[in-house]
Amino acid sequence: MQVKEYIISAPGKAILHGEHAVVHGKVALAVSLNLRTYLRLQVTSGEKVFINMPNIHTFLSWDLTELQSLVTDTTVNYSSTTELDTSLVKRLRDFVGIPDGTTDTGGMAVLAFLYIYLSVFAHSESLPSMTLSVWSELPTGAGLGSSAAFCVCLATALLSAQGTISSPLTHQQDTARWSEEEMELINRWAFQGERIIHGNPSGVDNAVGTWGGILRYHAGKITPLNRVPMLRILLTNTKVPRSTKVLVAGVKDKINKFPSIINPVLESVDAVSRTCEDTLTKMEAGESSPKHYSVLEELIDINQHHLNVMGVGHPSLDTLCRVTLARGLHSKLTGAGGGGCAITLLRPDTDGSLIQSTREDLKECGFDCWETSIGAPGVQQHSPCSVKEDIMEILNSY
Amino acid sequence: MQVKEYIISAPGKAILHGEHAVVHGKVALAVSLNLRTYLRLQVTSGEKVFINMPNIHTFLSWDLTELQSLVTDTTVNYSSTTELDTSLVKRLRDFVGIPDGTTDTGGMAVLAFLYIYLSVFAHSESLPSMTLSVWSELPTGAGLGSSAAFCVCLATALLSAQGTISSPLTHQQDTARWSEEEMELINRWAFQGERIIHGNPSGVDNAVGTWGGILRYHAGKITPLNRVPMLRILLTNTKVPRSTKVLVAGVKDKINKFPSIINPVLESVDAVSRTCEDTLTKMEAGESSPKHYSVLEELIDINQHHLNVMGVGHPSLDTLCRVTLARGLHSKLTGAGGGGCAITLLRPDTDGSLIQSTREDLKECGFDCWETSIGAPGVQQHSPCSVKEDIMEILNSY
Repeated sequence: MQVKEYIISAPGKAILHGEHAVVHGKVALAVSLNLRTYLRLQVTSGEKVFINMPNIHTFLSWDLTELQSLVTDTTVNYSSTTELDTSLVKRLRDFVGIPDGTTDTGGMAVLAFLYIYLSVFAHSESLPSMTLSVWSELPTGAGLGSSAAFCVCLATALLSAQGTISSPLTHQQDTARWSEEEMELINRWAFQGERIIHGNPSGVDNAVGTWGGILRYHAGKITPLNRVPMLRILLTNTKVPRSTKVLVAGVKDKINKFPSIINPVLESVDAVSRTCEDTLTKMEAGESSPKHYSVLEELIDINQHHLNVMGVGHPSLDTLCRVTLARGLHSKLTGAGGGGCAITLLRPDTDGSLIQSTREDLKECGFDCWETSIGAPGVQQHSPCSVKEDIMEILNSY
Repeated sequence: MQVKEYIISAPGKAILHGEHAVVHGKVALAVSLNLRTYLRLQVTSGEKVFINMPNIHTFLSWDLTELQSLVTDTTVNYSSTTELDTSLVKRLRDFVGIPDGTTDTGGMAVLAFLYIYLSVFAHSESLPSMTLSVWSELPTGAGLGSSAAFCVCLATALLSAQGTISSPLTHQQDTARWSEEEMELINRWAFQGERIIHGNPSGVDNAVGTWGGILRYHAGKITPLNRVPMLRILLTNTKVPRSTKVLVAGVKDKINKFPSIINPVLESVDAVSRTCEDTLTKMEAGESSPKHYSVLEELIDINQHHLNVMGVGHPSLDTLCRVTLARGLHSKLTGAGGGGCAITLLRPDTDGSLIQSTREDLKECGFDCWETSIGAPGVQQHSPCSVKEDIMEILNSY
């Protein structure tokens, strides 16, 4: 008998334009970041469930009987994606031993796993034994949607194993994706995981992890854009710690202090997002040219200045922008700002040696830097040979 | 008999907020810059007129008979400040030997002098002999209103010598100023000089040179603000050459390219100017506090970002802002941008040694730097002992 195995990956997320302005009713563009989280699920014949998350040094296992005891009639009837079963969350916190208020990454990830596992299989005759291994290219806590990528992988693998959604990969394929309807379901379950981890997430991160590409986010509505190009970027983490809450509050204070000065800036950011969307649409329509890249670069520069005006810049980000501009590359912060991460646009013809030198410059500043892309596909099923060897090796080692 | 002598000074000009936006109907604040041009006029008994401008290496003299030959009936009848007597300008160009189109500083200054001299004295029985000496603390061609300060001094000294306006200085005074009506006349004659030198000036520079303080400039209307504080600043010249015309055209192009993005930025700049005006008014009303200085600093930072968005920044200006911010001081470009000059706000309690170190940092960048103030008085008559010794020495040496 063949062991049922699912290898799933989901991308991280970056904000291309509109961070902070989106809080005040403006358009933001969220993009998939091709630094991915990989999950391997093997349905096993033992009576145990193993989860191995070497990134966050979390390795746990439970007997099926223990887990079965957590399922109640309510869990079976409840099993829904519209509301969170808070009593189950409470039981799981007690079971794993995570006090209320604790937000440690490993603990939260385990809670999300157990919640989705128990909810998805609540209707099954019995809980299945399985081993999950997770490896992520994403740094955690950097605002790059690593928890959402994890939840999307979890939801996809568990729903596939349960049979609620298909396992779309055929023998001839390296990667495969799901139908629109199935992705809706994946996204809803991933959102439940995000709720457990973050409390009150916007839902943008899991949507990006599911659909990939570029999503327009406006007034609470998330719309995946059809047909957008993939763009090469450098993703840099300044590693300067920041509090998103404090930064968001700071922008609000600034609006209250100088409404006539800051409100037009938010208008301008809104127009930056819309102009960027138009430009990307034109590029994908086959007109992609250096002229379009110049526009994308100008928009990046403009928005970075606007974010500075909103007070969410940081000297580390100024340094980053200066260092990349010295190489002719344009950068902006992505996400909350005040440090954190930034994206640097690369053109299709940007020379490899120039990219290498820029990465070295950025590393010399003490930053982490990855060459990756934005606009990549969302959640995917992989054949083992389509996954980078080093990652496959990690996933196979558990 | 006592030799009639007039010592006059007028300040330069900086733009505090609103450069470029003013071209598109927004409010700008023009401020006097306490780097001054000094002029000494002595009515002599010889039959000659001497003008000595050591800054620009221009030393000329004419016989009164030569000059008298330039006065025609038209000059006498025309002598007006509403329109320029273009036939007189043409005769003066021929007389001095300046071909049409030449804009050399010395030549233009001489043209402006001769035009105002002949026009002001056209109604007199005969032209008076005199010696004028001019010394300026202002660099020329740096967008700091050096030509306007010169024209204001010229107009004031010549109108005083002719008796059209008073000579307000009494024996007990160090400095004195004129009535509002007299300043109107000074300003109109200075504007004629500016027209000769610049062709189509806005009139802001001569207004600042005349009234000093802070002027609001909006939709072609210039309004001196009552009761504004003097602010200590560093004035830095990056010495990066730029073309105001090219920069103005660049902003226009950017508005045409991204109207929905750039127009709100101009709105925001307008609000920066208005907020600054309100803050300065409050400060002069006696409420001046560190809180007000914080607002002024924030406005400077915001506007500098906006000017970058408009595309009139320059790496030299980025360096300047970074160098001063490292000392806790806030800077923005002033005027056309693309290099040129910048202002750095100093607080009343900014330490002398910190100012000294900052000036040294800026000089190490290859910039010229002056410690001065904005909002200083406009045109003044001076007693000899009220003028700095070194300047008086220069003026007396001719």
